[in-house]
Parts: sequence; C-alpha cells; structure tokens
Amino acid sequence: MIIDFNDLELNVAQNFKGGEKEYVSRRFVDENNKIMLGTLEPGASIGYHSHDADSEVIYLLEGEAAVLYDEGEEMLRAGQAHYCPMGHSHSLINRSDRAITFLAVVPTHNK
Amino acid sequence: MIIDFNDLELNVAQNFKGGEKEYVSRRFVDENNKIMLGTLEPGASIGYHSHDADSEVIYLLEGEAAVLYDEGEEMLRAGQAHYCPMGHSHSLINRSDRAITFLAVVPTHNK
Repeated sequence: MIIDFNDLELNVAQNFKGGEKEYVSRRFVDENNKIMLGTLEPGASIGYHSHDADSEVIYLLEGEAAVLYDEGEEMLRAGQAHYCPMGHSHSLINRSDRAITFLAVVPTHNK
Repeated sequence: MIIDFNDLELNVAQNFKGGEKEYVSRRFVDENNKIMLGTLEPGASIGYHSHDADSEVIYLLEGEAAVLYDEGEEMLRAGQAHYCPMGHSHSLINRSDRAITFLAVVPTHNK
C-alpha cells in the first residue's frame, strides 16, 4: 500500500513526551508499526523516553538535530539515520535555526 | 546511535529476490531491524516476495517506482512511503529512466 502523508491528518502534539513546543506529524499506525513524517521547529523537541517493546528509526530529511541517546549526545544530519534499538532511550531536539523534517518508523517487536 | 550510510559497505546483489539487474544498498542489521539505503538503476527491480514474520517500510527519496503489492500495482513517488505489512507480498521495480533511491526498514515482529 502507498502512504501519501499529504492525505493524512496533521497531528500537533504539545510537549510530546515532555519535550518543548510542538511536535507536528502525519502518521500511519497499525498493530505492528507507526510510520510518521515529523517536523520540529527551532527550539522544539521530543522528550527523553524509552523503547521497551519497540524500537525507532529516524531518518533525517532536512536540517540538523541533536539526539540524546542513553548516556550520550549525538548530532544527526540530513541523510543520516538515528536508531534507538529496543531497550534503549532517546530524545530528539532541534537546537538549530530552521525546521527539521524526518521520517520515523516505530516497529513493535514483542507481540 | 547514528547510522551514517556512507560508512557502511556497499552491497551489490544481483537479481535480488529474483528481480532484474542489481540492487545496490548500504545496510545496518541487528536482531530486530534491517535499515537500508537502497538504489535501483533503470530496469532494475527487487523480485516479488512475502513478509511472513516481518514487514517493510520503503520511503522513496528520489525518483518514481512501480510496486507490485498483493494482487495490484501501485506507483510510488518521492516523498511517499510504500508499506508491506506482515503477511503480505510485494516487489519494487524501476521502470523509469533514472535511478531511484530509498530508505527501507524491515522490522521483525514475531520473536
């Protein structure tokens, strides 16, 4: 099946997972996967959270983001992916002066 | 963790899953996910195959591709995703005159 994100409802989450400002996304969800096209404006973030029964792949399409991952901090650039394996924790922070856009896939592994 | 695809070995598979020509990719693999940056040149394809214990998300970064999905055929354009849920079958075909590039995530769900 084709997922055209333009056909999906715009979802605006305030302080998502305890982050700053708004996480704006269009999302497809079924029993095994969440598939999202997400945006964070400058100063916005997704708060630090753990993936206990799922994982997350974030492919950065535009911009530059900071990632807190377990005990460290990483820089994520367009064309790179950030991977949070099951059992790990992360957050995504836009400290830059332009919006970031990313594809995120959150698969469930323990059924 | 950051996945910089440029740091990963270039993998060239001939007639992948019974497809035409070469499937060129750089891939990160662990026990729960395959995360790939893939390319198909004009005339190249990934053959029709089923996903029985996993699924696949293909986000098209560049170009236009034909997708066989279960009984039908779909067109996939840059900025759209193709999703093959667990229990379904698909293939990816480049019938255009320029290369296609895509991010593919193959998560395992039945552990």
